[in-house]
Amino acid sequence: MKLKPFYRRVLYYETDKMGIVHHSNYLRWLEEARLDFLEQVGIPYDKMEENGIMIPVLSSFCQYKYAVRFNETVCIKMHMEEFNGLKFRISYTVTDKNSGEIRLLAETSHFFVDSKLKPIRIKNAAPEIYNIFRDAVGADIYGE
Amino acid sequence: MKLKPFYRRVLYYETDKMGIVHHSNYLRWLEEARLDFLEQVGIPYDKMEENGIMIPVLSSFCQYKYAVRFNETVCIKMHMEEFNGLKFRISYTVTDKNSGEIRLLAETSHFFVDSKLKPIRIKNAAPEIYNIFRDAVGADIYGE
Amino acid sequence: MKLKPFYRRVLYYETDKMGIVHHSNYLRWLEEARLDFLEQVGIPYDKMEENGIMIPVLSSFCQYKYAVRFNETVCIKMHMEEFNGLKFRISYTVTDKNSGEIRLLAETSHFFVDSKLKPIRIKNAAPEIYNIFRDAVGADIYGE
Amino acid sequence: MKLKPFYRRVLYYETDKMGIVHHSNYLRWLEEARLDFLEQVGIPYDKMEENGIMIPVLSSFCQYKYAVRFNETVCIKMHMEEFNGLKFRISYTVTDKNSGEIRLLAETSHFFVDSKLKPIRIKNAAPEIYNIFRDAVGADIYGE
Repeated sequence: MKLKPFYRRVLYYETDKMGIVHHSNYLRWLEEARLDFLEQVGIPYDKMEENGIMIPVLSSFCQYKYAVRFNETVCIKMHMEEFNGLKFRISYTVTDKNSGEIRLLAETSHFFVDSKLKPIRIKNAAPEIYNIFRDAVGADIYGE
Repeated sequence: MKLKPFYRRVLYYETDKMGIVHHSNYLRWLEEARLDFLEQVGIPYDKMEENGIMIPVLSSFCQYKYAVRFNETVCIKMHMEEFNGLKFRISYTVTDKNSGEIRLLAETSHFFVDSKLKPIRIKNAAPEIYNIFRDAVGADIYGE
Repeated sequence: MKLKPFYRRVLYYETDKMGIVHHSNYLRWLEEARLDFLEQVGIPYDKMEENGIMIPVLSSFCQYKYAVRFNETVCIKMHMEEFNGLKFRISYTVTDKNSGEIRLLAETSHFFVDSKLKPIRIKNAAPEIYNIFRDAVGADIYGE
Repeated sequence: MKLKPFYRRVLYYETDKMGIVHHSNYLRWLEEARLDFLEQVGIPYDKMEENGIMIPVLSSFCQYKYAVRFNETVCIKMHMEEFNGLKFRISYTVTDKNSGEIRLLAETSHFFVDSKLKPIRIKNAAPEIYNIFRDAVGADIYGE
């Protein structure tokens, strides 16, 4: 795979009175980065949902390394750490677009469910999704 | 009717870097006030939705009179301006709980729809809701 | 002026359980469109704030014409309706990027303040900003 | 200490099109629970900020055990796991108010900073805050 990282500019309403991005927004950016990934690999999330497949979050971990401010742009790169056909775990490196300095390190884990939120084996439900996730594990998805 | 006004304290994450509540949050508070009204009059919104009735917003108007800050509490009072069985219009007065000074004047208009977002006549679909809205028009819902 | 309209894709977390964008988010998109306008005309808002000039919202009016859904992209075009050196009023047309159908009609009004939220005459405080706003009034800012 | 747990009802706009609370909102509820704790122990956060003391988040960890839905009420209990005068770490148990079933397990860690976001030793800056945090470590703050 040779994907593009996800770039995200800080919106005004994402700041709080401390003058920096409220920490809850990072989880939203990570979601945006995941959906961008799914789109880049040809399995856009809106189509997945129409086919009755959803990917809720099981857990999240965030290390807020350095405050991000209004109008700064961050670069989000993902790494597929684990995938077993039922669940997967992604790590994220969020850096400042200009300086390359780390802003956030994060991880989220997820599972595949049907429209009733019941877990499913994605290999049976959608083999093309299974293959993409399997190939992404451990790969440098932004490399050659 | 003799309802209680809706009190709402400003949450930290609702402020922005200007140090005041971001103006988009007021529409959320007005929604909370409407749902509190529906609960007080015995037609809680979650039950309405389970029965396939939803109340989307048609329009909103907000006059931001004075900035509201973290940890301040506002008092929201509603007034049912109009209702014709299909649509209704509510005005809101949002004041500081302590000083009574006006913070926001607002109006929203709504219509009743079914679960497919198709407009419905509420008198046919749910006469008890119709009666409550009809009685609320022009009434001092916080009085005797 | 010949500016580009502002395009905005609907994010997953902007939807609510009705399956459509929660109406409070439109005010956030309009803000994004305003900041994009300021950047395109060479007076980015973060620089303005650093120079002690802020532009709070005085009022907002939204007509929600048609529900917007996850992953749809809207096109936001602005029109400077009024400007008197102290206040200004903008109207917005929000259409679906693909079909061109109207999704939202809106207006917001604003005033210029200093860092203590005290109103200022922008002609004195920053003549270059004054000139840009004056020239934008009534103009087709997306035309030739 | 004998504090009250923090109760929080799910707001409509906190749900997403999956019909459940968007996971980013839990971090906001945890913040509300922390601020409620600070108020109950007599050191309200708005007063702390006025005195130039802020408490940013260093890290967060959330295990989303079971989806929470509109209008459900959760009960949030905190436990002060660690505190060394510079940093502290809190764990949270979020349960359904009615059933007592677990909805979320979480942890956040924080440090004390001044108004320029520079770390401070809270024992010097505000001994009364130091004492409260020291006494909370390992204590059953909802017990006798």
